[in-house]
Amino acid sequence: MSRGKFIALEGGEGAGKSTQARLLADALEARGIPVVSTREPGGTPGAEAIRSLLLDPPGQGWGAEAEALLFAAARSDHVAKLIRPALERGDWVLSDRFVDSSRAYQGGAGALGDEAIVTLHEIGSQGLRPDLTLLIEADEARVAERLAVRDGDQSDAIGGRDGDYHRAVAAAFRRYAEADPQGFAVIDGSGSPEEVHQRIMQALNPLLGSA
Amino acid sequence: MSRGKFIALEGGEGAGKSTQARLLADALEARGIPVVSTREPGGTPGAEAIRSLLLDPPGQGWGAEAEALLFAAARSDHVAKLIRPALERGDWVLSDRFVDSSRAYQGGAGALGDEAIVTLHEIGSQGLRPDLTLLIEADEARVAERLAVRDGDQSDAIGGRDGDYHRAVAAAFRRYAEADPQGFAVIDGSGSPEEVHQRIMQALNPLLGSA
Repeated sequence: MSRGKFIALEGGEGAGKSTQARLLADALEARGIPVVSTREPGGTPGAEAIRSLLLDPPGQGWGAEAEALLFAAARSDHVAKLIRPALERGDWVLSDRFVDSSRAYQGGAGALGDEAIVTLHEIGSQGLRPDLTLLIEADEARVAERLAVRDGDQSDAIGGRDGDYHRAVAAAFRRYAEADPQGFAVIDGSGSPEEVHQRIMQALNPLLGSA
Repeated sequence: MSRGKFIALEGGEGAGKSTQARLLADALEARGIPVVSTREPGGTPGAEAIRSLLLDPPGQGWGAEAEALLFAAARSDHVAKLIRPALERGDWVLSDRFVDSSRAYQGGAGALGDEAIVTLHEIGSQGLRPDLTLLIEADEARVAERLAVRDGDQSDAIGGRDGDYHRAVAAAFRRYAEADPQGFAVIDGSGSPEEVHQRIMQALNPLLGSA
């Protein structure tokens, strides 16, 4: 059994990642590929417990440094207990967000800087990178519309930050993608979910050829 | 108002740190010095929540990397919300354990190595060091006796590890103290609590002179 492929879906709030993750999992399973669908922060009992602390902080909220350490701790558990074992038994892993979300939210647009986030990922998860990171880019007006119809989801400790912050996040994602064209596919998030899904399947062609 | 002094008490399980922390706090307060007594992991609502995750892990327990990240996250919150503000308003801070416990337990005697723990402390807490770290060394037979009479305390996720591990922890503490003789005072933990306390007060003389 060869090692499975690890695919991360990244992008700002409301870019349609979760919908695309479901469509992609269905499409892969229809091809007979065993798929483990997961998300960050979370994905394991330990990481979900840390997720609860992150989204509903006790006391006065987390500083940037503690927040970054908690995300890295959750990711370490997620990688060690779920992602690596799944890949080793030949499953594909689809993760709704992975380390580039930490880089974009806590590093690029946050107070900590990219180098610190990358260092935490090295220490916590031996720097594991997805085989491919799908960066779904949606235009701002559309994102604002989608977020407006979500119930309360944008009022948590991360999603509730302001427009400038979310624009800085989008710019950071784009920088990481441009710096690593082999590791990223930038997906145009406009059009219907099915249209976006087709773009994703096209981007996955090289990996599917070897599956 | 000049900055307060930051004193950490370190040592293996059963070395008498908590007793000595209380005696020291009383002695300093008797001299009119405002003292904040705290402990790690914990000390703030956020850090206490992380402490609960560390001592009672959800799922299959934490890997070495996740554990080290959680300790660093708890310390980051503790430093930002309690230790630095107290020092800035001129209080002395006594902490039962600080970063050298992470270095000894997760680094020196653990799987991660000292460099990784020091890096996490740099990222999480700007590398804050105590003005003086009191390393209380007790002989093994005495420690075994003390631990035997504690109720259940040695069965948590950290304290319950075996004798070789605890000897490696003691050796790691000693190496850090030898590498930084200005920053550490090694305290002979033998004799009565009052005798040990007198040794600690003597070690603190240089700091008390300037208080």
